[in-house]
Formats: sequence, structure tokens, C-alpha cells
Amino acid sequence: MFVHNKRLQYTVRVAAPNPGLANLLLEQFGGANGELAAAMRYFTQGLAEEDAGRKDLLLDIATEELSHLEIIGSIIGMLNKGGKGDLAEAVESEAELYRALNGGGNDSHITSLLYGGGPALINSAGVPWTGAYVDSIGEPTADFRSNIAAEARAKIVYERLINVTDDPGIKEALGFLMTRELAHQKSFEKALHSIQPNFPQGKLPGVPEFVSVYYNLSQGEGEVRGSWNSGDEWEFVESPQPAVDGGDGMATVELPATQLGTVQQMAVRTASDPTLDPITGADLGSGSAVK
Amino acid sequence: MFVHNKRLQYTVRVAAPNPGLANLLLEQFGGANGELAAAMRYFTQGLAEEDAGRKDLLLDIATEELSHLEIIGSIIGMLNKGGKGDLAEAVESEAELYRALNGGGNDSHITSLLYGGGPALINSAGVPWTGAYVDSIGEPTADFRSNIAAEARAKIVYERLINVTDDPGIKEALGFLMTRELAHQKSFEKALHSIQPNFPQGKLPGVPEFVSVYYNLSQGEGEVRGSWNSGDEWEFVESPQPAVDGGDGMATVELPATQLGTVQQMAVRTASDPTLDPITGADLGSGSAVK
Amino acid sequence: MFVHNKRLQYTVRVAAPNPGLANLLLEQFGGANGELAAAMRYFTQGLAEEDAGRKDLLLDIATEELSHLEIIGSIIGMLNKGGKGDLAEAVESEAELYRALNGGGNDSHITSLLYGGGPALINSAGVPWTGAYVDSIGEPTADFRSNIAAEARAKIVYERLINVTDDPGIKEALGFLMTRELAHQKSFEKALHSIQPNFPQGKLPGVPEFVSVYYNLSQGEGEVRGSWNSGDEWEFVESPQPAVDGGDGMATVELPATQLGTVQQMAVRTASDPTLDPITGADLGSGSAVK
Amino acid sequence: MFVHNKRLQYTVRVAAPNPGLANLLLEQFGGANGELAAAMRYFTQGLAEEDAGRKDLLLDIATEELSHLEIIGSIIGMLNKGGKGDLAEAVESEAELYRALNGGGNDSHITSLLYGGGPALINSAGVPWTGAYVDSIGEPTADFRSNIAAEARAKIVYERLINVTDDPGIKEALGFLMTRELAHQKSFEKALHSIQPNFPQGKLPGVPEFVSVYYNLSQGEGEVRGSWNSGDEWEFVESPQPAVDGGDGMATVELPATQLGTVQQMAVRTASDPTLDPITGADLGSGSAVK
Amino acid sequence: MFVHNKRLQYTVRVAAPNPGLANLLLEQFGGANGELAAAMRYFTQGLAEEDAGRKDLLLDIATEELSHLEIIGSIIGMLNKGGKGDLAEAVESEAELYRALNGGGNDSHITSLLYGGGPALINSAGVPWTGAYVDSIGEPTADFRSNIAAEARAKIVYERLINVTDDPGIKEALGFLMTRELAHQKSFEKALHSIQPNFPQGKLPGVPEFVSVYYNLSQGEGEVRGSWNSGDEWEFVESPQPAVDGGDGMATVELPATQLGTVQQMAVRTASDPTLDPITGADLGSGSAVK
Amino acid sequence: MFVHNKRLQYTVRVAAPNPGLANLLLEQFGGANGELAAAMRYFTQGLAEEDAGRKDLLLDIATEELSHLEIIGSIIGMLNKGGKGDLAEAVESEAELYRALNGGGNDSHITSLLYGGGPALINSAGVPWTGAYVDSIGEPTADFRSNIAAEARAKIVYERLINVTDDPGIKEALGFLMTRELAHQKSFEKALHSIQPNFPQGKLPGVPEFVSVYYNLSQGEGEVRGSWNSGDEWEFVESPQPAVDGGDGMATVELPATQLGTVQQMAVRTASDPTLDPITGADLGSGSAVK
Repeated sequence: MFVHNKRLQYTVRVAAPNPGLANLLLEQFGGANGELAAAMRYFTQGLAEEDAGRKDLLLDIATEELSHLEIIGSIIGMLNKGGKGDLAEAVESEAELYRALNGGGNDSHITSLLYGGGPALINSAGVPWTGAYVDSIGEPTADFRSNIAAEARAKIVYERLINVTDDPGIKEALGFLMTRELAHQKSFEKALHSIQPNFPQGKLPGVPEFVSVYYNLSQGEGEVRGSWNSGDEWEFVESPQPAVDGGDGMATVELPATQLGTVQQMAVRTASDPTLDPITGADLGSGSAVK
Repeated sequence: MFVHNKRLQYTVRVAAPNPGLANLLLEQFGGANGELAAAMRYFTQGLAEEDAGRKDLLLDIATEELSHLEIIGSIIGMLNKGGKGDLAEAVESEAELYRALNGGGNDSHITSLLYGGGPALINSAGVPWTGAYVDSIGEPTADFRSNIAAEARAKIVYERLINVTDDPGIKEALGFLMTRELAHQKSFEKALHSIQPNFPQGKLPGVPEFVSVYYNLSQGEGEVRGSWNSGDEWEFVESPQPAVDGGDGMATVELPATQLGTVQQMAVRTASDPTLDPITGADLGSGSAVK
Repeated sequence: MFVHNKRLQYTVRVAAPNPGLANLLLEQFGGANGELAAAMRYFTQGLAEEDAGRKDLLLDIATEELSHLEIIGSIIGMLNKGGKGDLAEAVESEAELYRALNGGGNDSHITSLLYGGGPALINSAGVPWTGAYVDSIGEPTADFRSNIAAEARAKIVYERLINVTDDPGIKEALGFLMTRELAHQKSFEKALHSIQPNFPQGKLPGVPEFVSVYYNLSQGEGEVRGSWNSGDEWEFVESPQPAVDGGDGMATVELPATQLGTVQQMAVRTASDPTLDPITGADLGSGSAVK
Repeated sequence: MFVHNKRLQYTVRVAAPNPGLANLLLEQFGGANGELAAAMRYFTQGLAEEDAGRKDLLLDIATEELSHLEIIGSIIGMLNKGGKGDLAEAVESEAELYRALNGGGNDSHITSLLYGGGPALINSAGVPWTGAYVDSIGEPTADFRSNIAAEARAKIVYERLINVTDDPGIKEALGFLMTRELAHQKSFEKALHSIQPNFPQGKLPGVPEFVSVYYNLSQGEGEVRGSWNSGDEWEFVESPQPAVDGGDGMATVELPATQLGTVQQMAVRTASDPTLDPITGADLGSGSAVK
Repeated sequence: MFVHNKRLQYTVRVAAPNPGLANLLLEQFGGANGELAAAMRYFTQGLAEEDAGRKDLLLDIATEELSHLEIIGSIIGMLNKGGKGDLAEAVESEAELYRALNGGGNDSHITSLLYGGGPALINSAGVPWTGAYVDSIGEPTADFRSNIAAEARAKIVYERLINVTDDPGIKEALGFLMTRELAHQKSFEKALHSIQPNFPQGKLPGVPEFVSVYYNLSQGEGEVRGSWNSGDEWEFVESPQPAVDGGDGMATVELPATQLGTVQQMAVRTASDPTLDPITGADLGSGSAVK
Repeated sequence: MFVHNKRLQYTVRVAAPNPGLANLLLEQFGGANGELAAAMRYFTQGLAEEDAGRKDLLLDIATEELSHLEIIGSIIGMLNKGGKGDLAEAVESEAELYRALNGGGNDSHITSLLYGGGPALINSAGVPWTGAYVDSIGEPTADFRSNIAAEARAKIVYERLINVTDDPGIKEALGFLMTRELAHQKSFEKALHSIQPNFPQGKLPGVPEFVSVYYNLSQGEGEVRGSWNSGDEWEFVESPQPAVDGGDGMATVELPATQLGTVQQMAVRTASDPTLDPITGADLGSGSAVK
């Protein structure tokens, strides 16, 4: 069960309203690598987890991410607060309100117009948050790798936001949030490697003859090789030829006789006649079909 | 530039049509962890990559994933081939065709009805592939962690598909594809760690006082601690109190005087009066309103 | 800031695994009227709210909805628990696992295959949760009407789920959740009507000549009138004629001379000649074109 | 059956082209609270309705909303008309066309580039209209509450648009459309309360011990109580403790013995060892791993 | 302005309820090639059209497609009518209602559970209708080709639905709807070719040296050539080599000196060292790292 | 199997960075009519095709479209290259980086912030690419019409992009890409008409009495008729009356007695009483309710 405390996890001091900046921060509210995505990623994993330690870890961090969602949402609310009142009360001229709505040079108009200045579950382009951002699949050795990667991405988005902000209160709060992603990443790394072995993920081993082969499929000048495709570990195939299994590279299926018949019937009905040089719609449309 | 060879990278022998199985395999064709998602992930990263070695690696593997997309799509095509002809030629009774369409016990009807049995860019529930599956953000130390995680997830989905299939030709092809995910994962691991340092991602360091703190936010019986939140590396906060920065945990903004006025005007206009006990729509609807 | 307690708000006793039922319950986990939608609806409103009483109310209920999300997710996890182990460990034959995956008669395969049996942010058809479900717009007299309606819908979905479940532990938990929606709906009604006036929403009044007019636009036998379009309050227009403002019903714009020129140029270039009876692609395709 | 009259329901006089304003108006054409959403909401409800009076009402208003969609689309078309010709005929320099395309300060480029200036089924951020905006569920006492809320939201969006427009012809048309939402809202209110009782929605009553309880889950300074959680009607729980049913707050399921075995097998295979302090990828990446 | 007549354009006689068939018919209600997609395609084009004849044509057919949407929706409503009442009134046992909900063998449960049996704007897999289905771009010579193709697809989906239905009243209504798509297709063909020339679309001609070249990019055994790549009209390039313009096939940009500096700085910071053979996370996870 | 050559199909010379233009070009990378949509359209059709000539044609062109995707992505990468380095290395002031991010006057901020300047699978409004853009249905006479239309649309989008670009290297590359769409369109036209007959698509003929009827459903002044609805071929119905089949235009279903009972029970329970003039929530909210 969740309980909420009216205070934020981190104090937020915003120097001045700025709807354009608010719009950029939406990336971490309702965006792909934002705090709702993080919270839901760990929360859903936590509910399904059988291991008591990992379950506790996932719910600890999921709960913190919800608190971060609240911080980011509160910053956005502060940045939009002035404009929200102006639009609702319409004390400015229409022309001034129009300019204010479109003045950020980015998509901040959508927040004012559709959401009245409140934090919305959209990214900085106005695209609604989607459950497709949550890539959990229920195997911890895969999911914790996904979690590590998700924290790495979130750290970078915070870094970019810090780079474009000069409001000291916001920079400080974003610095806190960015740092917590690093702390979470370290915890997930530890938890992953506390499972031994954790590679390959799952139960099935790879097929030996293909697990250390490297296919050089992008060809031409400028090849640079490294530990990712050279050394004793790797068999490097310079110019791969289909089919690599030694077969003919064809796809076939055994069809029952009746189905074979209908497939052939369909093929005959829709066959293209390569001996024909038909007049076409493009000919009709370009005036070239004078016949 | 891409060139295509009419042979598949791996030979496909399907024992019998099976639209229900075809539907499950869509997960690796047009699904979140499928081959299009993989190909596009590496292809878009490769185009933006400055490092020659990684660029080559990404385009090698992107190209292989396109070849895998072709293999999976070909298996799906074979599994649906018979039903496709039957429906198009309508040689069966309506009742039999209806049964065939719905007989898989899963969503295979959508493939027949909407896509005519061809491989479609949807997952096994019929949800169209979305660019939101591709989580590249343009910082290699983050992106390669994402790539490692993506390969880990794809490996698991292939393992699950192998577990529910008893067609030997399909099992063998899926085994090849699953194995290649492991090979790719190993390459991405090597390339990641060929960048030193690669943690933390990006340029900005974490804020020292928060980077090794663990907040115990899921409380109650059943705590299990491990290396992810105990040991010298960690400061464990048993019962975190807001705000952790020592401030009051409030969100504030400095508003210009005119905007402050409109915000207050809006607040007054929409204030809820806590001293009122109003009749409500629910009262009207439940018969409890005194009229 | 949020804190989590390891115990659920309501105790869950599931009698037996049932992936098909789990799939139906996803409607209230990651569906349009589910608990995440509810929690996010009130949470985002609460962050933006200026009125202290309503802010508190919204965050109280948002927090409870997160706790409900946890209950529903836990039930789903229990219902899928057995199948999840079977698929991951593959101790059954492929054919049995295939049957288990597709045996629910509904979309439960997607949960097993893609999410490994964990609760996922999808609805019962496998469609990912979207921020588009949250219809908050930042004007409390509108938002609280939306909240009342959302609770009304959620109540109905719970009622339907109760009607198709005979597991007593699940029925009891769903009964609790359904009841809480009614309690929330009553609170939202009270808060709405504690704002006086609350109709019309916003500041602008309606245009007097159109605010009590009813246009009878669906015509023919079978009209039934009631208080919604008859009585002193209404002007009923039996057979509305355009334009109702008395104008010509045309749309016009004053174009600058240069733009008028380019529009005319485009019109001439793409004009259809009604005096022509052209041969078409359909003629070519049906053999009816005289060549 | 529908019939169309070439005249609009309301005459539209646009003073000058303005693609930026056109983009904002898309919110009411292809946006969440726009006219297509309204028309489809009432149309789909109307088709399923059993009550003759409500069916007539829903189809009357659905038809009017289609007519409103036509009005809004016509205004958008007029506002984009000049720019559309310029781009298609390319009589300006590339630099001027580029400036025109991006000059609105908002997303108007997408309309020109992708839709050629015509009205498109997207909102003002370019997000395509989705059926997820239609929240009908087929129980009239819930659906009519949804309809009331939808009209309330649409009224507010029109009000905001009026506030940012100073073209008198557009303001007048938007005023008409805004007013009609109020008229529709009044009709839906009447129709809802013509069903008695209409609360609670559906057939199942709430569980008595939970229907009038208020859980104070957002805690700390600043509580404000009102009729929504105080008075005789309510039992106010100051500090709720899980589980509120008096149970242990755990989620459990009775598993068949074989499934219990596989779940345990999976748990063992993926157990995290809390006694381990493993080297991790982050250690490798930060140079802190002892190699 | 639209007016509605309470009678359908075509009379609907359904022999018996059948939720599974209703689910399939959703493809033509809220699916990609369904009636809403058709109506909105022509309606939005019609609003933007400058040519009086085509505008009239588009609005005639848009209006008819709305009437078809009503027919399809009415059939769906009839097919679901019995189940809707059973679920709402819960007069059956839970087990029987559960079976009824999942009995169609397809996704019919979503319609009952979420939409209460009414016609919903989803396809047969439960995916919400999206504005992305409407591919109009505002150039009539392109749009009318899109319209022709859309009618062709809709005809095929109706044909498939007829093939799986044996209810004579439904077959007859679907036959009417399928036939109307053919009539519309013929009208659109005539209107397209009444514009002369209509190929190439738009104003810009193709670059002469590339407009009749065919690149043979799928290579290997099994080539079949026809009028699409052979004959006087075509230059066939057997084995295309990059770059076809005779350049080096590289992508370059002139960067200002300061930006060149930051790009190089980023490249150095994130360079992969190909001389390194690092230990990786996979090594740690597979036990192959020497610690 | 695919093979990649490190050289592009066409050489790209970009004169200077321009993130705003890069954003517009995304339309052809991850947009509805862009190169991924084209490649996937032909690739999925090719995999399912039975006719050897068409299969070869589809895979030739699919492969070329992948090569075009690479060209467009490379141009985008070049246009964003400078800004990407600046943001990652943060050598500018925050204010300058903020201006750079928002300076394009369009949605270019999303590319920098979320994707780090790399080409992303989104359109110019930031909407992720969706499989819903691919409208293949598996009947070649329909699919090739769709392909012709898709090429026509893509040609127009390229033409518009050329019109707003004055960088000569980009104009030249876009001219090449636009021209190739024309070449592909011609090939698809030839292949379509090499199938004889190809109209009507599929197997079922139209119902004779409805296949040449034109319903004049948009009425009023301004009718213009042409070959699309006049001449010997057409029966023009001036004022269509429902039902056109001569029936009563009603929708009916035969319900089993028990289901009829539950439907009636539901109707009674939710009936609106037209004789009532109830007080409503709007009355309560507007102060017009007599209490």
C-alpha cells in the first residue's frame, strides 16, 4: 500500500515562469525515459518477482521514482503557473495571449491549450505516454539489464536538460534527480550480478556453431575491427553467403493437398503476365497512351 | 547501400501450416523485441555514430537483423500459406472458413482478415509496430547498454517460442536466431567496455552526497538486503523523510506581479467552499436529495 | 513524497491459477478505465491544483488508486504464477505449453509470451496504456465532472468482472475495489458542488440565442421527446436549415492578392474537366477500355 | 442514413490566412475533446441504445457534432488556404517558403508538409486522433456522465481558443460552437436524471463497510477537509493501515503441486545471492573493478 | 450541414446473435480500411478541395460512407445484443458468462468487457482507430490514387467477411456494402483521369537520368522480368554499384569551426579502443571473467 | 539475405548544419509516406507473394527503399551534427544551447533532447512511426494500387521538401529520391496491369443493381457533375431515400427467448422517463435548482 507525504522528496525553487522550459521537462514526466516509465517498469517487475531481495529493491526504487515524478511535475507546474492564470482569466489581449502561447519556440502551446498548464503525461513533442515504453519481460537476468540501460538513458536526458537550463533552483533539482539515476543503476548492477550465472539469460544455451561467429555484412572501405569481432573468441566471416546452414536458403512448407490446390488456384488467378506490355494508369495520366 | 540475395540466411523447412503458431511468431516480426526493432535500433545508431569501429559493428548487425526479419517473415508466410488460399478462393463452406479463422485460440484471425495471411508489422496481439520501441538516444555508453538489454530480451522471447513449438524445422531456425542474439550481445558488451570510462554515462558526474545513498521506501516485514544496498559503498536510509535536501519540500515560483494577480483571480473564482454541504448529482441520482 | 508498505491495502486470496481470467483483469490494470488511469488522472490534477482542499483530496485518492493498482496487479500475478513457471522451465511438452498459452480463449498468450506472466500495462486486448486515457484539462469544474464520469465507468467494469468470476477471494477483492470507486465518486461530487457556481464551466457565458435551442437533426418516425428537448427551457427546431445564423452558410477568407493568385494557379493546374469521359485504370483492368 | 447540405450550419468569415491559428484549432477537429470525438461518442452510443428517447437524442446531437466538425474544418481550410497555394506552386523563394512553414511558432509545419494545408485528424501537436478518446462503455448511467464531462471539457477548449483569437468572424463562429456544447450538456443532464435511480451506476450495490469511508493517504501539514470527507456521511480514517479488511495484506494463490514445483525451480535458478558482493559492469566501466 | 434519417440506407436482418462474428465485423467499423476511415478520408479532402466537381463528389461519398458506418455498426449491435443483456443483468452463472465472453475464439471479450457490447472504434484485434489510417495529403492527383486504392482494399475485406459468414441477411448487407466500394472506385477513377495530365503528380518533373532506370537489387537465381523492368522504356542495371551519381557515396557536411571542435571532442571522449580486449558484463555473468 | 555496402546509393553534400530542416526531413525517414514505410510495405508484400516476377520486383524496390532510408537518415545526421556536439559537450552557455534547441521554429528540440541528434523513427511532429502506415492486405490487385498511391504521395512530400530547401546538395539528393518514386510508380503500374483482369479486385463480383448507381447525398446549390456520376454508365439518384433496398431500413435480430428477457430487463432498468422534468447537476451548479 502507498502512503503520500505532502512534502516533496526534494525542495523546488523556480526563479521565474518559463513555459518553453516546462515543455522540455515533460520529457522526464511523460516521456520515454521519464519518471513514470521508470516507476512503472520497477513496480510491475516488483509485483511479479519471486526473489525477496529483488522484490524489495524494485519496490523501493519504484516508490522513489513516483516521488521523482512528483518533483518533475511540480517544477512543470511552477513554470506554467503564470501563463495558466493569464489564459484562464483572459486579462491580456488576444494577441498577447496568442504570443505567449506560441512564444516558447517549441510545443508549449499544447500544454496550455489542452491541459491548462498542468503537467501532462506527454513527452516534449506532445506524444502521449505509452505502455510500450516499459520493456519488462519477466526474466530477471534480462529485466535487470533493461533496468541498467533505462537508468543510463535517463541520466543522459537529465544531463541534456541541465545543459539548457540556467535557473539555479531547477539545475539543482535536476542534478539531484540525475544523481539518483546513477545510484539506482549501481543497485541494479549489483542485483544482476548477485544472480550467478546470469549469461546467457534464461535456460537454453546457444547453438555452439553460431554463438561466436561474426558476419561481416556491411562491406567496403573503412572496416575497423576490435574485440567485438576479432581475437580467439570470434570466427570472422568476411563475406557471408546464404544459407549459412549449408542449405539452399529457401522457405518451404508441406501443404495438405486441398490447400495446395487453393494456393495454386489463387496464384493462377492473380498471375502477372511478363509477356504483356500493358497500357497503365500512368500512361493515361501522362498523355503517353495515345492508342 | 543495401543489396539483397534471394536466398535466406538460414534455410526454413516448415512441416505443416499452423496459423496459431504464425500469430505467436509475429512477436519477433513486428513486436517490441522483434527483428525490425533490432534492425532499426542498430541502423539508426549506426548512421549517427562518429566512431568508425562502432559504426561498422552497428551496420553489420543491423544488416543481419534485416536478414533475420526475412527469416521470421518467411516462416510466418509458410505457416499461413494454406489458410490464405482457402480464404481467398473460398472453396470451403463459410462455417469451415470461420472456424479456421478463429481456430488458433489466439489472435490469428486478424492476420487472415486484415493482412491476407502475409507477415504484418504487428505483435502477437495485433498491435502495430511503433517507433517507440527504439530507445536509442545518441550517447554510445547509454545506447550500447540498451543494445545489450535488447538482445537479452530477444533471446528470452525466442526461448519461449522454442518451448511452445514442436515443428523441428521451426525449432532449428528459431535456435539459430536465438543464438545470434547471444553473439550480438557479446559484441555489444565488448564494444561498450572498449570505451573507458563508460560509467557514468555522459559528461556530468553525480552529486556526491546523493550518489551512494539508498532510500528504504518500501517498508514493513520481509526486508532482504544485499550488495545492492549494503556494504561500505552505501549509505542506507531506513526511514527517509522529506525533503532529503533539508529544505521544506515545497515547490515555489517567483511570479511577476500581474501574473500573480491572475493566478489569485482564478483561485478565487474556482475555490471550493469547505463549509458547504451541497446537494450533488449523486444525491439526485440515488433519491437521497430532498427536493 | 511517496512511501510504500509491503502489505496490500486489501488481502488477496486466489483459489487457483487462471491465465484467461488474468487477461480480463488487465482491463483494470493497464486499461482505459483502470487503476493506473485513475491514479494518474488525480495525481496530475493534484499537482496543478491551487485550492488546498481539492489538492489534498486529489492526492489522497491518487495514492489510494496506486494501492489499488497494486492489488489488481497482485491478483494478475497470482493467476499467472503457475503458467509462468511452466513456460520458463519448460518441463511440459511443447504441445502442452502451446495449449496452455492459447487455452484461455482470449488474449492471454500475449501476457505469457511477451511479459512472462507479470502484470503488464496493457488492456485485455493487449493494447498498451496510453496517456490519451487521461482527459484532465486544468479547469476544476470540468475536471471534477470528468472524475465523476471516470469513477462511474470504473464501477461498471468492476461489476462486469465480478459477474464473470466465481473465485470467492477474487470476487471479494473486486467488490472492495468497486465500492471504493463509489466512495470516490461521492467525494468528487461534493467537491464539484462546493464550487459555486460550477455551470457553465470556465468564465465565458454562452451566446443567449443558441444556449437553449434544440436542433432535431435525426429525423423520421420514432421521435420521443422528454425534458432534454421539451418544456419551457427549450426552443425545439423541428427541421433545422443552414445556416442557423441567417447567413449563407459559406466559408470564406480574405486572401492577399499574391496568395489569391497562387491558389487560382493551383486550381487551374488540378482542375477536373467535367466534359471529359476518360478511359481509366478500372477500364484497363476490367477489359472495358477500347484500345 | 445521413444526408449532407452544402451549406454550413454556421457561416464562416475569416479575415486573413493564419496557419499558426489553424494549427491551434486542430485541437477541436482531430483533438481529444474535438468534434470528431464528440460525434463518434454519441453516434456509437446511439447505435447501441435501447431507449427510444435517448437513442433519438444521441443521434440528433451526433449529427450536429458532424456539422460542427465541418465548421471547424472549414475555418482551418480558410486559414491555411494561402499558404497551401504558395507551397504547391512554389512561386516564392525556398527561404520564404521555409519561413512561412515554420513561422507560426507552433506545429503548423506538419499540416503544410504532410497534409498540404487541409484539415487533418490530428491535434495541435500533430498526434493522430485515436479511438481511445471515446470512453463509452454501454451503460447509460455511466455514459451520460461521460457525455456531460466531455461537453464540459469541450466548452473550456473553445473558451481558450476564443481567448487567443482576435479575428471577429472566427470568434463569432467559435462562440456559437462553444454555446452548443452548453446546450448539449444540459440535454445530457436532463436525460441522465430522467433515469431513476441513476446512482450507483449498474446493478451491484457497494459493499456497505467501505462505501462511506475516506482514507487520508496524503499526509502532513496543510490538510483541508470539506463535505467530500467530513460530516455524518463519512468515516474518516486518519492514518490507514494495511490491510483494511483486517487480513495480513498478502497475495496468495493455491498452486497445483506440479506448478508449485516449476515456480520453485525458476526461483532457485534466478535467485539473487545477498551474501555476494559481485564486480559489476558499472565497476568495469568506472575503473573501480580490480582486474 | 448533416441531417440524419432514422432509417438505415440498407435494411439489416440478423438471424441470431454471434459475438465472434461481431468482432470480425469491427474491421469495417473501426479498422484500417473500414467505413470511418473512408468517411473521414473523403470528408477531409472535400473540405480542402478547390474544384467544385470533386468537392461535391467527395462530400457525396463521405456522406454515404457515414451511412455505411451506421449499417455496419447496427449489424454489430444486433450480433452482440443478447450477450450484452446477459452480462449487464447477470442472470446466468459466472461460469456461463465467462464462457460466453470468451467463446468466440477471437477478441470478442474486449467488446463485452470494455464497451458493453456496443460498436466500438477498434479493429478486430481491439486496436483503437487512428487518424494515421487517413493518408490524404492535399494534392488531388495523389489523393485520388489513394482513394482508388482504399476502395480496392475495402472491397477485399468485405469479400473476406462474406466468405466467413453464412447468415443470409448479413451476407446480403455486406454484399451491398462491398458493391458500393466498387461504384466509388469507378467514380474516383473517372475524377482522377478528368485531370489531365495527372502523372507525374504535382509540378516538379523527375530528373531525366533516373526516371526510367531499374536497379536490380535483389539478386540470385529466380529472376523474372516483365514490362515493369524491361523493354525500351527501361534501363536495367544488373548489378548496381554505389554511388549511382558517380560520387564517392559519402555523406558530408561543412561544419563551422567551433562546432567541428565540439564534435571532435565528443568523438574523442566516446571513442572505442579497438586494441583493448576488455572484461565485460557478459564475462562476469557467465563465469568466464578472471577475477 | 541482405548485404550492406558502406557507400550510399547517392552522394550527400550538406552545406551547413540546420536542425530545423533536419526536422522537416524526418517526414521521409520516420513519417507516414517515408522510406521506412515504403521499404516495409514492399518487403512484407514480397515475402508473401506467390508470383515470381512480382516477388522479385517487390524485393528489388524494398531493398532500394532501405538504401533511400539510409540517404535520408544520413542527411538528417549531417544537418544535426553540429548541434549534437554542442549539446553533448556543453561548451556553450545554457542560454545559447536553449536557443539552439528551440531555434528551428519547429519540433527540432525533440530530436536533440530525446535522440541526441541522430535520425529517429518519428515524423516531423515527433510522432513515432507505426505499422499502421503499411496498408498491405495480401491481394495483389489491391496492394499494387496501394503501392501506386503510396509512391504518388511520397513524390509530393519530396516535392514540398525541395520547395523549402535552398541547400544545393540536399536539393539534388532529394531530387534523386523524388525521381526514383516516379520510376517505382511506373513499375507498379506495369505490374498491376500485367494481371488481367485486375478489376474488380478479388473474386466476388459486385451486386448488379448497385454497382453503377450514384447517390447524390450532398445536396444544395453548386452541384457539378462529370464522368464520375453522369453518362450512360451511371444511374444518378437525385434524392436518395432510405432504405435503398426497398425494405424498412430497420436493423433487427432474432433473439432466443432468454436473451430477449434480459435485454428487456436491462431496458426497463435503465429507461429514461420522458414525463419527468428532473433537477440536474447543471441546475445545482448554476443556482437554478430550487432546493
